[in-house]
Amino acid sequence: MTLPAPIPAPAPAPTPADQFTFGLWTIGYDGTDPFGGPTRSPIDVVDAVHRLAELGAAGVTFHDDDLFGFAATDSHRDTQIARLAGVLAETGLTVPMVTTNLFSAPVFKDGGFTSNDRQVRRFALRKVLRNIDLAAELGARTFVMWGGREGAEYDAAKDVGSALARYREAVNLLTEYVADRGYDLRFAIEPKPNEPRGDILLPTVGHALAFIATLDRPELVGVNPEVGHEQMAGLNFAAGIAQALEHGKLFHIDLNGQRGIKYDQDLVFGHGDLHNAFALVDLLEHGGVHGGKAYDGPRHFDYKPSRTEDSRGVWESAAANMRNYLLLKERAQAFRADPEVQEALAAAKVAELAEPTLAEGERVSDLLADRSAYEDFDHASYFDGQGAGFVRLQQLATEHLLGAR
Amino acid sequence: MTLPAPIPAPAPAPTPADQFTFGLWTIGYDGTDPFGGPTRSPIDVVDAVHRLAELGAAGVTFHDDDLFGFAATDSHRDTQIARLAGVLAETGLTVPMVTTNLFSAPVFKDGGFTSNDRQVRRFALRKVLRNIDLAAELGARTFVMWGGREGAEYDAAKDVGSALARYREAVNLLTEYVADRGYDLRFAIEPKPNEPRGDILLPTVGHALAFIATLDRPELVGVNPEVGHEQMAGLNFAAGIAQALEHGKLFHIDLNGQRGIKYDQDLVFGHGDLHNAFALVDLLEHGGVHGGKAYDGPRHFDYKPSRTEDSRGVWESAAANMRNYLLLKERAQAFRADPEVQEALAAAKVAELAEPTLAEGERVSDLLADRSAYEDFDHASYFDGQGAGFVRLQQLATEHLLGAR
Amino acid sequence: MTLPAPIPAPAPAPTPADQFTFGLWTIGYDGTDPFGGPTRSPIDVVDAVHRLAELGAAGVTFHDDDLFGFAATDSHRDTQIARLAGVLAETGLTVPMVTTNLFSAPVFKDGGFTSNDRQVRRFALRKVLRNIDLAAELGARTFVMWGGREGAEYDAAKDVGSALARYREAVNLLTEYVADRGYDLRFAIEPKPNEPRGDILLPTVGHALAFIATLDRPELVGVNPEVGHEQMAGLNFAAGIAQALEHGKLFHIDLNGQRGIKYDQDLVFGHGDLHNAFALVDLLEHGGVHGGKAYDGPRHFDYKPSRTEDSRGVWESAAANMRNYLLLKERAQAFRADPEVQEALAAAKVAELAEPTLAEGERVSDLLADRSAYEDFDHASYFDGQGAGFVRLQQLATEHLLGAR
Amino acid sequence: MTLPAPIPAPAPAPTPADQFTFGLWTIGYDGTDPFGGPTRSPIDVVDAVHRLAELGAAGVTFHDDDLFGFAATDSHRDTQIARLAGVLAETGLTVPMVTTNLFSAPVFKDGGFTSNDRQVRRFALRKVLRNIDLAAELGARTFVMWGGREGAEYDAAKDVGSALARYREAVNLLTEYVADRGYDLRFAIEPKPNEPRGDILLPTVGHALAFIATLDRPELVGVNPEVGHEQMAGLNFAAGIAQALEHGKLFHIDLNGQRGIKYDQDLVFGHGDLHNAFALVDLLEHGGVHGGKAYDGPRHFDYKPSRTEDSRGVWESAAANMRNYLLLKERAQAFRADPEVQEALAAAKVAELAEPTLAEGERVSDLLADRSAYEDFDHASYFDGQGAGFVRLQQLATEHLLGAR
Repeated sequence: MTLPAPIPAPAPAPTPADQFTFGLWTIGYDGTDPFGGPTRSPIDVVDAVHRLAELGAAGVTFHDDDLFGFAATDSHRDTQIARLAGVLAETGLTVPMVTTNLFSAPVFKDGGFTSNDRQVRRFALRKVLRNIDLAAELGARTFVMWGGREGAEYDAAKDVGSALARYREAVNLLTEYVADRGYDLRFAIEPKPNEPRGDILLPTVGHALAFIATLDRPELVGVNPEVGHEQMAGLNFAAGIAQALEHGKLFHIDLNGQRGIKYDQDLVFGHGDLHNAFALVDLLEHGGVHGGKAYDGPRHFDYKPSRTEDSRGVWESAAANMRNYLLLKERAQAFRADPEVQEALAAAKVAELAEPTLAEGERVSDLLADRSAYEDFDHASYFDGQGAGFVRLQQLATEHLLGAR
Repeated sequence: MTLPAPIPAPAPAPTPADQFTFGLWTIGYDGTDPFGGPTRSPIDVVDAVHRLAELGAAGVTFHDDDLFGFAATDSHRDTQIARLAGVLAETGLTVPMVTTNLFSAPVFKDGGFTSNDRQVRRFALRKVLRNIDLAAELGARTFVMWGGREGAEYDAAKDVGSALARYREAVNLLTEYVADRGYDLRFAIEPKPNEPRGDILLPTVGHALAFIATLDRPELVGVNPEVGHEQMAGLNFAAGIAQALEHGKLFHIDLNGQRGIKYDQDLVFGHGDLHNAFALVDLLEHGGVHGGKAYDGPRHFDYKPSRTEDSRGVWESAAANMRNYLLLKERAQAFRADPEVQEALAAAKVAELAEPTLAEGERVSDLLADRSAYEDFDHASYFDGQGAGFVRLQQLATEHLLGAR
Repeated sequence: MTLPAPIPAPAPAPTPADQFTFGLWTIGYDGTDPFGGPTRSPIDVVDAVHRLAELGAAGVTFHDDDLFGFAATDSHRDTQIARLAGVLAETGLTVPMVTTNLFSAPVFKDGGFTSNDRQVRRFALRKVLRNIDLAAELGARTFVMWGGREGAEYDAAKDVGSALARYREAVNLLTEYVADRGYDLRFAIEPKPNEPRGDILLPTVGHALAFIATLDRPELVGVNPEVGHEQMAGLNFAAGIAQALEHGKLFHIDLNGQRGIKYDQDLVFGHGDLHNAFALVDLLEHGGVHGGKAYDGPRHFDYKPSRTEDSRGVWESAAANMRNYLLLKERAQAFRADPEVQEALAAAKVAELAEPTLAEGERVSDLLADRSAYEDFDHASYFDGQGAGFVRLQQLATEHLLGAR
Repeated sequence: MTLPAPIPAPAPAPTPADQFTFGLWTIGYDGTDPFGGPTRSPIDVVDAVHRLAELGAAGVTFHDDDLFGFAATDSHRDTQIARLAGVLAETGLTVPMVTTNLFSAPVFKDGGFTSNDRQVRRFALRKVLRNIDLAAELGARTFVMWGGREGAEYDAAKDVGSALARYREAVNLLTEYVADRGYDLRFAIEPKPNEPRGDILLPTVGHALAFIATLDRPELVGVNPEVGHEQMAGLNFAAGIAQALEHGKLFHIDLNGQRGIKYDQDLVFGHGDLHNAFALVDLLEHGGVHGGKAYDGPRHFDYKPSRTEDSRGVWESAAANMRNYLLLKERAQAFRADPEVQEALAAAKVAELAEPTLAEGERVSDLLADRSAYEDFDHASYFDGQGAGFVRLQQLATEHLLGAR
């Protein structure tokens, strides 16, 4: 396939400093879905990296199978790795993240780490271990684990307690391996509630964070939340990211678009829930009420160019992801800089929530003795008064999002 | 209101040994909803406890406001506590759980522990501390915290990181208080994704478990999952309970019914997702693949008698909750005892998932050296073969659920 | 309650020519929800109309119970009607729509037109007939019917076929009444999938349109779709409106905001799904590909000021609805006027869909004889080619929505 | 692939009199999903029909592409048709329904009847016309149209009004063709809200019924609702079927299982929402409150054997569909026959809803003059009284569903 000429991107234009990265499987998506076969040919990795470099991306990521296919011969694998290394050297792009495909081949039809079949679990571990070596070799700092087949359609078919124990066994083994080898590599678990399994293990950011706290080396494991995956459970993605950040566990992030609770759409970032995308970029860039960038890692797009498009649409959609991030970043900066917003934030006491509820040195006994906190507290004033001023804040956010201020 | 004569319950009939408990607010629900006022008068606590005793319940639970109203005088509060204590003594019912209402009064319109308004947070803590003393006095072992107003409609209005910090400050303070007082009381956080707030903090069992792991005294805090709350996020309730159990954190449970992702319905247990209710009872009673009762605490019903009903419907619905639990328990017992089910479980390798993936003493290096795990592994045999047998299991479960075996 | 000083609205500022209208129950919402009582006092109708006039609204709408309460005395009813008429005359506002409350009082706990209880159905008809007279007297042109209690929680409790027959009987009777009286009044059915009933009759725009086609006087009955109601079923609101328009049945519209499939949020218009709000305003104002205003009636806001707010927030939220509509209208105008958008629409063949598939005068036999349509058609060219260009269009829409073009 | 020995089905066992039919694509599903390739080989049509006959099915259905592939040569097409005809003659199975695949091939990436590309629309019509001839030749009585690709991901990309006009043009042409040829064939539109498109045209049973009312020959077109499709929008499937029946439009039905609002699961019938499946079978077999079978056509299973299964699981799952239908039919019969249920239905006034609200010959003027309907009506008695008794009915239904009565 001959690639069309690059599309000139209007300002703001992405540069590698923005840390935008793409999975090879994103721009390489061939259009297959549950009701139809491919509408596009595969894209060669060398072409893909060249094009992403032209568009201003900073790096690429991949599953083993994306680069050399499932059960590739050693020679084909080596060739493909060499071709990737060559084009990285040529373009300056990096591979900040690598992951393993434990979900496409028939052998993984009941999962990898938590397949009921022990032989499959052992095979899965071997496949991952091999790919960890490759990740380290390529200088990746994050190894993502999306356990899309770890789950079940039927409750009786899967002992969830045992499944968690096996998942833990696997991750403990992998962190031990990385520590033993001295790899500078951390793991990031990617939650998803369902699809392709009826219910997937560790369905949300919360479940993954809870699981991580039970590991042998929790410091080596964080999360890789994906916009659409949380929104498939109707959850507020920005709020989930805020919890991951508060727990120190946002190791990587997958940006895309989703329009509500339905099948996994993997739209372009900014083509889904726009209010929440604005809140997310504001959080990542400005770190909540305290200020300061909250997340310093790659802005990784895990999306699918719509099946209706040909290669022109593939590359336009790739550019659209980056452009929307930058447009939202501009709007978030203007929002934070607007004196009226600052005034409205103060009126809504948003920063007051950062203030501890007890005074410095105050003990429970002090609180119990403070009549102003209870006996003399005028709780009745909250009826017909003490309005929170939240709607005004939301309206200011909306107007900034719309570029109307 | 004169209560109608008790309805004779067909076998299986509940007894206190079943540990069925009800919130006073459940059978006391007056029918108010967002589009209509009450259809029923309040029920007096003494009448309520008598009637629950007649029906075979083991205990009652309550929010402070359920028993004596918000901002009650001390004298009214004392009277109501005494009346409750009297009827407990008379009937033998217990109060295994108490909770605090931090969501109904206007003062809590932006939450309690995480209100942006620090004065409200201090008032909330005092209200909870006072109710903890009462809980301990009444012999409750669990103190539930449902933070239904801890959340926001608009992302800019709530700094989620700060909110989590304040939530943590509150829970740390309360656990310190309980420890200092020597109360035999543990806390259970009840997650909910939304309603009455647009998004609620700690929206799922997973998010709550993750938060608990960051507390000063995590051993004193667990979860109180509610069937409908997880199902409002489209999550598998039985799977969430399995994770809570695996983490040792199922301190209490709220049983009811929900029909999919919509407003919080609080139907009778068994009137919602029947397949998942069957899986849940099977899990609670038989503990997954290892056997043994997985949960020993109260089976607490947190439901609402439909607004269409008068008092007869209230008590019929209370009885229906218990009866459905017992019917599902019978069916789960028959399912586990059926040799064909045992055979199908074995064929589906359900118990094999409890077996560690590495052999005893096996190290990563051993796994890497095992050619049968990778180089010689016949992954191709999983195409057109090695069927998991899960549909058969689900069909056996369905037939037992339908009482057809 | 003393009203705060009006907030100066930045341009674009609403005027009565914009036809913005509000239900009395919207700005009058007292904050009651399933988990808490009121946080605000009622607003008197005269104050409300004055304030809406100051903000630039064109009219008000109401349920009978909003103006004079359920089962009001005739004298109180007359007084309230006179007070409303006075303030309308004073301010120039109109009452383009009236509706009846068949959902709040206990008597309607199983619905009005489709209550299982025939006496309730007769009472409901009488209540509506009385209010139709009032609507005609006040010059309303649309009578909305939201059957929020017409439904069931349990399948066995409601014979849906009979319920539809009774609904039809009721609407036929009402249209006959209006025709007989010579009232210039049409009916608009407002669909909703659930809440407050588990499932509501005529759950979507589609179900209502289908029902209307079976009426005696279908020309007198259309739909009054509400943004949030369709989105509670995960449906695309703009697409539903397009179908209603295509069937000539968009008689009225309820604008608000909803954030996905959950309880009915009734947020400010523009505070929910922003992409779909943009598409909706574009459709209403520019009528799809053919151009021309598609809908000429009131832009009616059916929203609830958040419970966290006091009266200042009430009026700020009212103003925000109108402002967001106008901002979206500006952006839709710019989108349509952008030559690059025109070019992208042409490339995506959007207007080609308005062209009949058969040529003028072409018959099936001609189509069957046209080898270019089948035997010689190059369907293979759609692989790796003939990209639809839809992502580019969506990106242009996004940039206009963000005010970035 | 050698087929395993047939599995003996326990009573109740299906017979052709039950009219159970299967799509060739159901038992032929190869396991491909968005995240993985096939896990099973294709099944030959002759083998499939033999096996379905052994299991007790009455017929098979197919898309053109299921039988001979997209763009097959005439000779291959003829061979496959002959092979099908042969095995039908041999087994006695029939082909009561045929449908056309307008969604898998790249040419249909933007739909068939409503593709923006007029040439694609003409090709689609030709493909359907050719298959209608085949349907008539094989004696099919119903021609299903599932427009899975008729829709869009982005609002600006599809003019919904024009799309409906083109859809209408197509269906009008097809009904004219069938009428001209004298085929005894009716059309059934199958709605779906989304997947594979972001939003699909005619997303629910309601939208399809409304569209049908605008056709030239509405009597020739009905609906083919699918359990999971309506449930993907959170709608009550049995209620939707009741509306389709009330409008005389249930021409065909697709039975399967779905677990809430998520991707299209196509589980076995009875493995999804069991309460609603019970209500559905009760409705189809007993016709609501009036009694009498409500639907006489094929009980068509449109499901997918889970990707985890091999051929044994394929055939077990096929049998499970039929068995669950029969088990639910038994339970519905027992429910209707139970005197306590009859008493509860009467107490809940379920049949009273079939009684017209106005007496025979009563006019609006009579109703207005009836003081018992309004002035003297005791609406206050519905507070604390006149309970609807719906929970009791639901509990009786639940107990019959569980086989506990």
